[in-house]
Amino acid sequence: MAQVTGLEGVVAADTDIALVDGEQGKLIYRGIPANQLAVRHTYAEAAHLLWHGGRPDANRDAAAQTERRLADKRELSEDLRAMLDALPLQMPMMAVLQSAVAAFRQKAPDTGHWPPTVEQAERITAAMPTIIAHHARRQARLEPLAPDPELGHTANYLYMLTGQRPAAVHVRALDAYFILCMEHGLNASTFAARVILSTQADLYAAVSGAIGAMKGPLHGGAPYEVIAMLEQIGTAERAESWLRELLERGGRIMGFGHRIYRTQDPRAQALREVTAALVGDDPAFALALHVEETALRLLAHYKPGRRLYTNVEFFAAAVLRALQLPPELFTPTFTAGRIVGWTAHALEQARVNRIFRPQSRYTGPLNEQDTPPS
Amino acid sequence: MAQVTGLEGVVAADTDIALVDGEQGKLIYRGIPANQLAVRHTYAEAAHLLWHGGRPDANRDAAAQTERRLADKRELSEDLRAMLDALPLQMPMMAVLQSAVAAFRQKAPDTGHWPPTVEQAERITAAMPTIIAHHARRQARLEPLAPDPELGHTANYLYMLTGQRPAAVHVRALDAYFILCMEHGLNASTFAARVILSTQADLYAAVSGAIGAMKGPLHGGAPYEVIAMLEQIGTAERAESWLRELLERGGRIMGFGHRIYRTQDPRAQALREVTAALVGDDPAFALALHVEETALRLLAHYKPGRRLYTNVEFFAAAVLRALQLPPELFTPTFTAGRIVGWTAHALEQARVNRIFRPQSRYTGPLNEQDTPPS
Repeated sequence: MAQVTGLEGVVAADTDIALVDGEQGKLIYRGIPANQLAVRHTYAEAAHLLWHGGRPDANRDAAAQTERRLADKRELSEDLRAMLDALPLQMPMMAVLQSAVAAFRQKAPDTGHWPPTVEQAERITAAMPTIIAHHARRQARLEPLAPDPELGHTANYLYMLTGQRPAAVHVRALDAYFILCMEHGLNASTFAARVILSTQADLYAAVSGAIGAMKGPLHGGAPYEVIAMLEQIGTAERAESWLRELLERGGRIMGFGHRIYRTQDPRAQALREVTAALVGDDPAFALALHVEETALRLLAHYKPGRRLYTNVEFFAAAVLRALQLPPELFTPTFTAGRIVGWTAHALEQARVNRIFRPQSRYTGPLNEQDTPPS
Repeated sequence: MAQVTGLEGVVAADTDIALVDGEQGKLIYRGIPANQLAVRHTYAEAAHLLWHGGRPDANRDAAAQTERRLADKRELSEDLRAMLDALPLQMPMMAVLQSAVAAFRQKAPDTGHWPPTVEQAERITAAMPTIIAHHARRQARLEPLAPDPELGHTANYLYMLTGQRPAAVHVRALDAYFILCMEHGLNASTFAARVILSTQADLYAAVSGAIGAMKGPLHGGAPYEVIAMLEQIGTAERAESWLRELLERGGRIMGFGHRIYRTQDPRAQALREVTAALVGDDPAFALALHVEETALRLLAHYKPGRRLYTNVEFFAAAVLRALQLPPELFTPTFTAGRIVGWTAHALEQARVNRIFRPQSRYTGPLNEQDTPPS
């Protein structure tokens, strides 16, 4: 019977982009802790760092230029709009994204797309919220909205979805979320992007493939479950009895524990810090913080020594619920954030490229029919 | 500076599907030599073998059912046709294929597509020639043709491209080509398909990503070069002087030598056998065989001991040129063949699944700005 290793523990690439240290609970983007970036820096500064390196404090002018270039690239081409308008309304968003990015800006012949460039990375990154909002509004039988170049990347995303200028607290929280989900080492989608790019395929082909990997529930996740829990709890008063009852009957609290992090997930900490600062303004944030505090207290009692900490999905769900994003937009929104990391990895892969071509071990039959030729 | 290993020599999966033995020049599909399949079996029998296993001689009835099911699935859905008709005419074919497969049959919600099934594999395999022919005819300002259920898989492909019922010798040669390019171990595209599928993403997402990898010239190849050589040689009489002049000035004969095979490429041998049997009917085959014979004789003289043998690209180019396929359809046609291997690997991956998540080694800066919180 064939087996797969998942390549666990195998080093598939060196990278200058991120360090994921599960033992120490550290996530570092090019020398800078991701949580520090999320709390103190803008979305464009973080994207600029992943694409170009440098120190964000010394790069504010260059990052502002990155921000302007992203704002200039939000509009979809006529060709891409025509394609999106031809897709069935009921087509799931992740399939739309994978398909649209594969079709992205393919007027030129196939040649001329190698090596990938930061300009191409900016184009995909800038267009992703526009594509999501375009299909979401079609699905809601609403006219798609043109991007507003006056708004920042995340504020414009919320505007294109809702038609309303978002509250500053929501933009702040979504910025932090986007920064924290930009990059996480050689996860399956980032790895898929590097494998595809290693054939000298173009950046659109690689990012489209990565979106395909993100479609899978083992990777893109099912944040619905945290949302469902928060919805069922409903109010702060009910939290303790609801959670206690769950634990008494052996249930699992969603949004706690992580495969890699053996201590606090640094992304959860940063999102908590950002949401805590905003909590006075938003009852949804307040409920999430209260549920977390109660759950950690009860887990210490019911499952002592298990080192179960809040993971990033818990706060991702809290933030996206406060923004009133429907659950079917959670994975696409995660995707819109992760684009920056995928493209940074693709640019790095192109610089040191070697085609990925691992071995397989044949475990099938060997009953060759070596009959003489007739 | 970051490095990548390409995972050379690393076993990423056990597989029951194929053995690629470069030292001995063997390519075995589930116990049966691929060249034997190409010479003695039908396209549907080979596809049936890769999807289901068994012995082709004992499975002729089941394979005939596979053939019928493939014939029944050639027509595109209205949704997919509408999408294809909305794509810009100048969009390169490989981008069309990657985009179309990502959009394939996505009416249902994302759930319900796991685990992948042979039925889904048949759908993609059956539709691929229809999609290629649809876009190719749009590009040629011709009306796309409906598939003809009376014709076999490859005969119908040629019919949909040209509007003519193809010659039996051409169908025979293209069948052999399709069988021989169905599967080749953990090459970059097949590996990408398995990585994407390992997240429990659906088969469409995985195959679309594999097409992205095939887009890259390091993988999908540039068979133009063999064609250009054959075109320049033109007639059998000119072969020796043309090749000798190339070798005298230190040039490289295209279509000889292979990264994996240290002896004869078994796929080239099989295609030679098939084309040799057809050569009386076709001057293009005759020229290719004469060029090969002459080149091997001259290589033995000019580069003794180098073990340079004809590779599969040489005969692929010869076959596709004889079929009068334009060069921009070579990689898409290779893709239409390889679909069977990709989907067989995806089905195998699903049965033994473990998410691919290799390690990266961080080689970036560690100058964390651990300034105290303000």
